[in-house]
Amino acid sequence: MDSGAIAKILHWSSAGLVERDDHLAEEEPLEIRVRGRAISITMRSPGHDDELAAGFLLSENIIRRREDVLRIEPCERNEHGNLINVQLAPEVPVDFARLTRHVFAASSCGLCGKATIEAISAQMPAIAAGDSPVVEAGTLAALPEKMRQGQTAFAKTGGVHAAALFDAAGKLLVLREDVGRHNAVDKVLGHALLNGLVPLERHILLVSGRSSFEIMQKALAGRIAIVAAVSAPSDLAVQFAAENHQTLIGFLRGDRMNVYAGRARVRFA
Amino acid sequence: MDSGAIAKILHWSSAGLVERDDHLAEEEPLEIRVRGRAISITMRSPGHDDELAAGFLLSENIIRRREDVLRIEPCERNEHGNLINVQLAPEVPVDFARLTRHVFAASSCGLCGKATIEAISAQMPAIAAGDSPVVEAGTLAALPEKMRQGQTAFAKTGGVHAAALFDAAGKLLVLREDVGRHNAVDKVLGHALLNGLVPLERHILLVSGRSSFEIMQKALAGRIAIVAAVSAPSDLAVQFAAENHQTLIGFLRGDRMNVYAGRARVRFA
Repeated sequence: MDSGAIAKILHWSSAGLVERDDHLAEEEPLEIRVRGRAISITMRSPGHDDELAAGFLLSENIIRRREDVLRIEPCERNEHGNLINVQLAPEVPVDFARLTRHVFAASSCGLCGKATIEAISAQMPAIAAGDSPVVEAGTLAALPEKMRQGQTAFAKTGGVHAAALFDAAGKLLVLREDVGRHNAVDKVLGHALLNGLVPLERHILLVSGRSSFEIMQKALAGRIAIVAAVSAPSDLAVQFAAENHQTLIGFLRGDRMNVYAGRARVRFA
Repeated sequence: MDSGAIAKILHWSSAGLVERDDHLAEEEPLEIRVRGRAISITMRSPGHDDELAAGFLLSENIIRRREDVLRIEPCERNEHGNLINVQLAPEVPVDFARLTRHVFAASSCGLCGKATIEAISAQMPAIAAGDSPVVEAGTLAALPEKMRQGQTAFAKTGGVHAAALFDAAGKLLVLREDVGRHNAVDKVLGHALLNGLVPLERHILLVSGRSSFEIMQKALAGRIAIVAAVSAPSDLAVQFAAENHQTLIGFLRGDRMNVYAGRARVRFA
């Protein structure tokens, strides 16, 4: 996590519009193998991968103590992302049939970084640059407060994420809350699809937390050109947005925002 | 999301110690089926399940428009959780082999609510009530600030979760940051295991965000009796903690906290 990516962003606030560098959290896939067999792929921050693999196996009840691990072979990069292999003591039983039900196959997993971005691009065309309206910065800045007013579950519990769909004029169309961030986005997309609104080329998706690779991929599946988040994007989210001509906004908070990709769709007064 | 669970909690702040009711975000598994075959199980907030299923299928590039869905059969409760079945138009192709690589099998998935809590209890014994030290409330209250000082990636990017392990005196032993909340916990657990510290009966796990069922399950795998979070727990997290005699603290913020389960391990001055 020490070597974060740096992006050139557009920062808008009451002090004006400036271009500046911004540190991004790294997000990359890791394939964990046990005795050479793939058992899990997860999106993670690179670093301490041996600990991640050991902790995952502890959580899965495969290992229980230091002696169960012979060695963890260092992470290597391959075309599908990153790999780590755990050699367990011979007496440790591994139910591969059970474990591998959890595996996202590398060829189609949606979780393999660069390789997957290419695969998705083949399946889902990028947004055309002219497919989406230009939105006023002030319209975008007002969206979080509109969403907050509808977050009844969050107001009660403090424990749920939200996703909301707006039209280009900033009118709230649907808001969903869920303990899972991805589920909140899926519910919004599902609502739109079931109501015949997909493709959503003239709409804005707002999420309450951070924006990850998977959020951008879901937005692209719904043909959403403008994605905004109250918090930070990962580096892979920014890369995905840029390659698919999506507009990605982060730290959207009333009087300020960062534009990470697709700045042509935002009009600053 | 309208009918949240209500828990009796202990709320501690500078105003003193009170017992009160607290709304919890609901967390339950949903098994999504397509043409009767299971393709996904996710932990979600109950409600709008038809939208969740439709949005998931859109995200997975299986459907693209309203006409692709014939009907979505309403959610029914079964012993493994909740179920929903999507009937697609006959001409919509579904690559079940690809999709079902994503499925967590219901019998062993770690994602099936009550049934799973029982299965895990069979695999992993509950913490014994006397296995863990009593911790001072003031010691706990000081932990988030200690964690924050080590969150270098968060300070730079605003986009990563953190998990940290402390001893019973409040000394920080290890802190890990990751774009994935579960990964941060796995890294901390893995570090502890690789350094021979597991079982962690005399330690405290702190997570930067919310506490879910899976966080509690990971903590139990490491034999951690005290779990604290800066934000809210889900109802399933509280239920899991209570059944396994774990102490669960939420909204831990310098001068206040809520104790959701296992209050005997916290000493209030």
